[in-house]
Amino acid sequence: MQFASNPAGGPAHRVGEAVVTLSDQSGNPLADTEVVVAQTRHAFGFGNIGFDVIRVANGEGVPGDAELADLYAELFNWATLPFYWGRFEPREGEPDTARLRAAAGYLRARGVALKGHPLVWHTVQPDWLLGRPLDEVERLQRARIRREVSDFAGLIDTWDAINEVVIMPVFDNGDNAITPLARAKGRIAMIRMAFEEARAANPHATLLLNDFDLSSAYECLIEGVLEAGIRIDAIGLQTHMHQGYWGEETMLAMVDRFARYGLPLHLTETSLVSGHLMPPEIRDLNDYQIPSWPSTEEGEARQADELVRHYRSLVGHPQVEAITYWGMTDAGAWLGAPIGLLRADGSKKPGYDALHALIKGEWWLPETTVRTDADGRLGLRGFAGDYELSPGGSSARSAICLSQQQNQTVHLTMEVEGHAS
Amino acid sequence: MQFASNPAGGPAHRVGEAVVTLSDQSGNPLADTEVVVAQTRHAFGFGNIGFDVIRVANGEGVPGDAELADLYAELFNWATLPFYWGRFEPREGEPDTARLRAAAGYLRARGVALKGHPLVWHTVQPDWLLGRPLDEVERLQRARIRREVSDFAGLIDTWDAINEVVIMPVFDNGDNAITPLARAKGRIAMIRMAFEEARAANPHATLLLNDFDLSSAYECLIEGVLEAGIRIDAIGLQTHMHQGYWGEETMLAMVDRFARYGLPLHLTETSLVSGHLMPPEIRDLNDYQIPSWPSTEEGEARQADELVRHYRSLVGHPQVEAITYWGMTDAGAWLGAPIGLLRADGSKKPGYDALHALIKGEWWLPETTVRTDADGRLGLRGFAGDYELSPGGSSARSAICLSQQQNQTVHLTMEVEGHAS
Repeated sequence: MQFASNPAGGPAHRVGEAVVTLSDQSGNPLADTEVVVAQTRHAFGFGNIGFDVIRVANGEGVPGDAELADLYAELFNWATLPFYWGRFEPREGEPDTARLRAAAGYLRARGVALKGHPLVWHTVQPDWLLGRPLDEVERLQRARIRREVSDFAGLIDTWDAINEVVIMPVFDNGDNAITPLARAKGRIAMIRMAFEEARAANPHATLLLNDFDLSSAYECLIEGVLEAGIRIDAIGLQTHMHQGYWGEETMLAMVDRFARYGLPLHLTETSLVSGHLMPPEIRDLNDYQIPSWPSTEEGEARQADELVRHYRSLVGHPQVEAITYWGMTDAGAWLGAPIGLLRADGSKKPGYDALHALIKGEWWLPETTVRTDADGRLGLRGFAGDYELSPGGSSARSAICLSQQQNQTVHLTMEVEGHAS
Repeated sequence: MQFASNPAGGPAHRVGEAVVTLSDQSGNPLADTEVVVAQTRHAFGFGNIGFDVIRVANGEGVPGDAELADLYAELFNWATLPFYWGRFEPREGEPDTARLRAAAGYLRARGVALKGHPLVWHTVQPDWLLGRPLDEVERLQRARIRREVSDFAGLIDTWDAINEVVIMPVFDNGDNAITPLARAKGRIAMIRMAFEEARAANPHATLLLNDFDLSSAYECLIEGVLEAGIRIDAIGLQTHMHQGYWGEETMLAMVDRFARYGLPLHLTETSLVSGHLMPPEIRDLNDYQIPSWPSTEEGEARQADELVRHYRSLVGHPQVEAITYWGMTDAGAWLGAPIGLLRADGSKKPGYDALHALIKGEWWLPETTVRTDADGRLGLRGFAGDYELSPGGSSARSAICLSQQQNQTVHLTMEVEGHAS
C-alpha cells in the first residue's frame, strides 16, 4: 500500500495516520487509481494578531492591506482579534461590533480561526467607566462579557477570558476601574466572574487565562483557580522577547512548569525583534518606546533563526496546542518594536519565509500523488489536521481529518466520473 | 480620678484603658488609697528564636547559656522553637520530644509563649525519608504533624503549619522527599494537609502559613487558599535583611499588600546584621556563607537604629500582631551572619538595649503609684497586655488585662490587710 507522507515528518506526538479505502458510488473499490492528496489545514494553532485585517475587511483598506491579508492566510490558521474595552466601546453603548464582525467573517472565510482578546483587563479601559461605584463597574463588566461572547458566538469561540490577573489588583500604572474591583473582589473572584459570564454566554467556547507573569505567582494563581473549581480550558503564556530570545532550554523549562496542570498550553503572545535588543535593565516593555527602532539586516537574520528555533521547540512539546505571534507588520507594531514578519513597507522579512518553510513546508503535506492498491486503499501520514483527497482526473474531493497519535481506518465513497452507476 | 499611664504612650490602636474600682472583702471601696500598678506582659508578640535555650533547659548548658536565657525573658514574651523534621527525628521513630518539652516548659515558666516551626517544609528533611514512595511520605508527614501538635498541645499552641510553599514544588537546592510530594499534590493540597492535620490534633491552635517570598506569588497563593476554604489564623511574613534594612516605606507597603486579607500578620523571621551587608547581587541568602562575618561598632550602631525604626513602624501597623526576631546571639547564628542582639561572647549589643528601651521602656508601664478617689477608683491606660495592682503596704495583688482600643470598667475585690472583715 502506498503512503502519502511528508518525508521530513515532525514530532511523533503531532502526527496522525489513516488507511483510506476509496469506493465509487456503487461500492466498488477505486483500485489501482491515482489519487492526489494534500493537506489543507493544521490542527495546531499557528496564529498571529489579526488587527491589521480590520481595515480591509471593512472596505477601509490602505495600499498593502489586501496583500498583508493574503500573506496572513497563506501562513497562519488562527488570529487574535482585539476587544480592548476602551477601544471597542469608546463611548458607552456604542460598541464596535459591526466592524469586528466584518473582520471576523473576512478571516473565517479565508480558513482562519479566531480568538477574542481580552474580555477583562485593567489596561486600555474606557474613560467613562472611571469614577463609577464598584458594584456598577462589576455589573457593566459582566454585561460587556456576555454581550461580546454572545454577539460573536459561532464566529469567535475562543476568548482570553481575563488578562494579566497576577498584577491586576496591584497594577499602578494608570487609573482604571478594574484594578479597584480586583482589589475588592480578589483575583480568583475576578477570574470566576469572567469565566462564569463567558461560559454562560457561549457554553462551547474555549476560555483562557492569560498572563505575562510566568513566575511562581502564576502557578499559585492557577492552583487556586483549579482548587476553586473554576474550569479553564487552556493556559495562556505570553512571551514577548524584546530583550532577546530566551533559548529553547529556558523556554521549555517554563512550559514544563505550567504543563503540570494537565491543561493545554497556548503561547498567546510571542514577539522577537529584528532590530537591536531592548536594554536588559528595563523591566517593563512599556517603558522602552523610542522614536525609531529600525529593522536591520542582521536583526532580521537573527529573528528568522530564532523564530524557527522557537517554533520547533514548542511544537516539540506535546502539551502546547497553539503559538500566536504578536505582529504581522512593523507598520504600527506594538511599542514601535520591529517585531513584525513584514517590514513597514509590506515586504517579507526572512522570518516570514523561514516560518513558512517550516509550517507550510517541512510540517506540511503538499499535493502528493499516490496510487491505491487492488482493494482501493492508500495510506496517509502527516501532521494532525485536514486533508483533501481527489482521484486523478476527477473533480471529486473528499476531506479527512488526522488526529495526533491516532491510527484511523476510513472508508470514503466518491462520486467519480465514469464510475457513476 | 488619677490615671496610671505611660506618658510616652504608643500608637492609639495598641492602647487600652480601664477604670478600676477597688473594694475590700466587705465590699467597702478602697478609697483614697495608694495603689502600685505595673505592667507584667505585652499582648503584642515580641519574639525571638528560642533555639539557644534548649541546652540550659536540659541541664546541658555551657557558660553563658543561663545569662542568655535571662536576657531573653527580660525582653521577649514569645519564642519560636525548632521542629525541623530532619533534626527533630534524625532516626525514624526517635523524635527529640523530651528535650523540646523541657525547653518549652522552661520558657513557659518564664512567661514566654511559644510557637513551633515548622510542621511541613522541604528543607532540613530526614535522610530516611528519601526514596520512600509518595503515598508513604504523605502518610508519614501527616503522622508527624499529628504527633508533634498533640504532644505539645497546651505548651505550644501556635505553629508554622507549613513553610515556604511558594517555592516548595519547584525547589531544586537539594534532594528531599517533600518537593516531589508538593509537585504531585499541588501547593494548596499541601497546605490543606498541614492545616487539616494540625487543626485536628489541636483545635485551639493558631496556625500560620509562612513564607519568604513576599511577591505577588504569595498573594496568589493566599487567595487560592482562602478560596479553597482553608482557615488560616495568621499570615507569616519573613523579612531577613542581610542586604540591609528595607526602610519603613517599603516594609509598610509590603505589609499593606498582605493586610488586605483581613488576617493577623506575623513578622515571623526578622534579621538585621550588625556587620557589613551581604552584597546586593546575591539572590539566595544561603549562597553567602563566609568564614568570618564580624560584628562591628559601626554595624552595631546601625543595627540598633534600624531595629527601633523597624519595630516602631510595624507596631504602628494595626494588623501586625507579632514580630519575631531571628537570632538572640551571634554564637552559632544562622548562616554565620552577625544578626544577634548579643555578641558571640554574650555581651549585649546596642540593639538589645535599644529594643529594651522601646519594648520595656517607652511602650511599658513600670511600677507606678496612684491614689484611688473617694469611690475607690483609679484609671489605667497602656499597651494592651497584663497589669498587676497592689494596694500600698499590702501583699495583695490583682491582675487585669487591657485589650487594644477598649475601655473597660473593672471591679476588683482585694484581700487587704487591716480591711479584713
